[in-house]
Amino acid sequence: MADNTVTLVEVGLRDGLQNEKTPVSPGQRAEWFNALVAAGHRRIEAGSFVSPKWVPQMAGTDEVMSLIRKPAQVTAEVLVPNQKGLEAALQTSAEVMAVFTAASESFNRKNINCSIEESIERFRPVVEGARAAGRRVRGYVSCVVGCPYEGRIQPSQVAHVTQRLLDLGVDEISLGDTIGVARPREIHALLDAIIPDTGTDILALHCHDTYGQAIANITAGLERGIRIFDSAVAGLGGCPYARGATGNVATEDVLYLLEGEGFETGVNLQHVAELGASICNVLARDNPSRTGKALTA
Amino acid sequence: MADNTVTLVEVGLRDGLQNEKTPVSPGQRAEWFNALVAAGHRRIEAGSFVSPKWVPQMAGTDEVMSLIRKPAQVTAEVLVPNQKGLEAALQTSAEVMAVFTAASESFNRKNINCSIEESIERFRPVVEGARAAGRRVRGYVSCVVGCPYEGRIQPSQVAHVTQRLLDLGVDEISLGDTIGVARPREIHALLDAIIPDTGTDILALHCHDTYGQAIANITAGLERGIRIFDSAVAGLGGCPYARGATGNVATEDVLYLLEGEGFETGVNLQHVAELGASICNVLARDNPSRTGKALTA
Repeated sequence: MADNTVTLVEVGLRDGLQNEKTPVSPGQRAEWFNALVAAGHRRIEAGSFVSPKWVPQMAGTDEVMSLIRKPAQVTAEVLVPNQKGLEAALQTSAEVMAVFTAASESFNRKNINCSIEESIERFRPVVEGARAAGRRVRGYVSCVVGCPYEGRIQPSQVAHVTQRLLDLGVDEISLGDTIGVARPREIHALLDAIIPDTGTDILALHCHDTYGQAIANITAGLERGIRIFDSAVAGLGGCPYARGATGNVATEDVLYLLEGEGFETGVNLQHVAELGASICNVLARDNPSRTGKALTA
Repeated sequence: MADNTVTLVEVGLRDGLQNEKTPVSPGQRAEWFNALVAAGHRRIEAGSFVSPKWVPQMAGTDEVMSLIRKPAQVTAEVLVPNQKGLEAALQTSAEVMAVFTAASESFNRKNINCSIEESIERFRPVVEGARAAGRRVRGYVSCVVGCPYEGRIQPSQVAHVTQRLLDLGVDEISLGDTIGVARPREIHALLDAIIPDTGTDILALHCHDTYGQAIANITAGLERGIRIFDSAVAGLGGCPYARGATGNVATEDVLYLLEGEGFETGVNLQHVAELGASICNVLARDNPSRTGKALTA
């Protein structure tokens, strides 16, 4: 892969929609998945096999998977929190299974009700089962710079959690600035603590735009050789008005950056911008993507 | 001045309000000026001595100047398009007079109805008069990366216009990405063409956030040694929904960046965020500053 190729992991239909109030039918989610494929995306999160009791927005992810059209070069990715989720996910054609933990003990306790170490031990059979079935495994580490309960998180702590996941057999780590508090210097400090042990190929950066810093942070990641970034069409997810709320960085804004910086993604910006505007219409929400608004005005 | 000190030029009350639909009384504008001083700003645009026929939002700038409280360390800055504007401005205590041209011939023709060269010749007596009266002169160069009529602008063209203004006796140049199309690599290319001739001390970067790239572009400017940046409280100005519309980068988002990057400004972010929220209330507009929204939620 040439150094000027960047892979986007489109997380709007999972990390985005799971935080949107308006529920979306599996049929609509599959239609959006297909539109993302048509725009050129190659890695797309399709949903999550978590209990609908906890995340009702993700109910029917199996139906989404059965409805999508997926060319050979496209991978569908799903979140699996536990063994039961894995069993359901393995009934689908999802190529990537994602597990998630946090670099913050407090956040983990509140979010998935266990310690970091317990969460990792819980993943062991999930990772083994997924790999035995020939699927790849992505590990999300959230709160890599800041935590809503603990404040700043030490890069060494993120490096420790990252290494534990890699030891389990996870193929790729997505480093998440879950509450969008990072600035470029903090991204550099984070990567200083991780890249020497892991290299860049297996790292993704997952930025939220709560404080408007995501594009600058992605630029820092690019400078350090990161070539995988998570983003959400129309910045789906979170409430941009609430402190600590999430708001994924908008795919449109990332694509506009990457085009200017000389990177290839294979994704058509104008198509994504039009899809983003259409999704915002369906959800009756404002479009937080500045590029999306500029291109569809 | 230490290398980690950054000066913000707050342009919301001029470049911002002149593009807002809702007119604001001189009394209210003076009150906001005073609030910006209280938040720690040291350089604040107070308005413009242009004809109210062309820019009705700036009517009464002389009244604004007569109403503000201005401690010794604060400079008030005003835009003066011509000799008549200068005469009015010299009746006030404004320390800095700003003249404006563009790096694009077409933009200049549409905006001020003359060529770049004619605009510069028109400034000659203005610059001479301001300096003879002991005032400093700022030169705005707009469309430094892109123009709505001509597309991309060559950095060499911007360097040429910059040099012409400096030859006239202008003290500082503000390089404006007026339509917010730049990405970091384009900022680097621009500065590559200018800094060797001018150094960094007399350069300011004036970013608009139309495509969500302003914070990344300012980061690029910081890397190159730029230490003066223009920004507008609550991202005043322009319409974020229209293609090519302007939207200044929000002071709140810039301050959040600068704090993380280790720069001192003397400006209190929380105070600016609260003022920005209050201004948006008065103008009955959405607050485009993500940091502002996060801090006042």
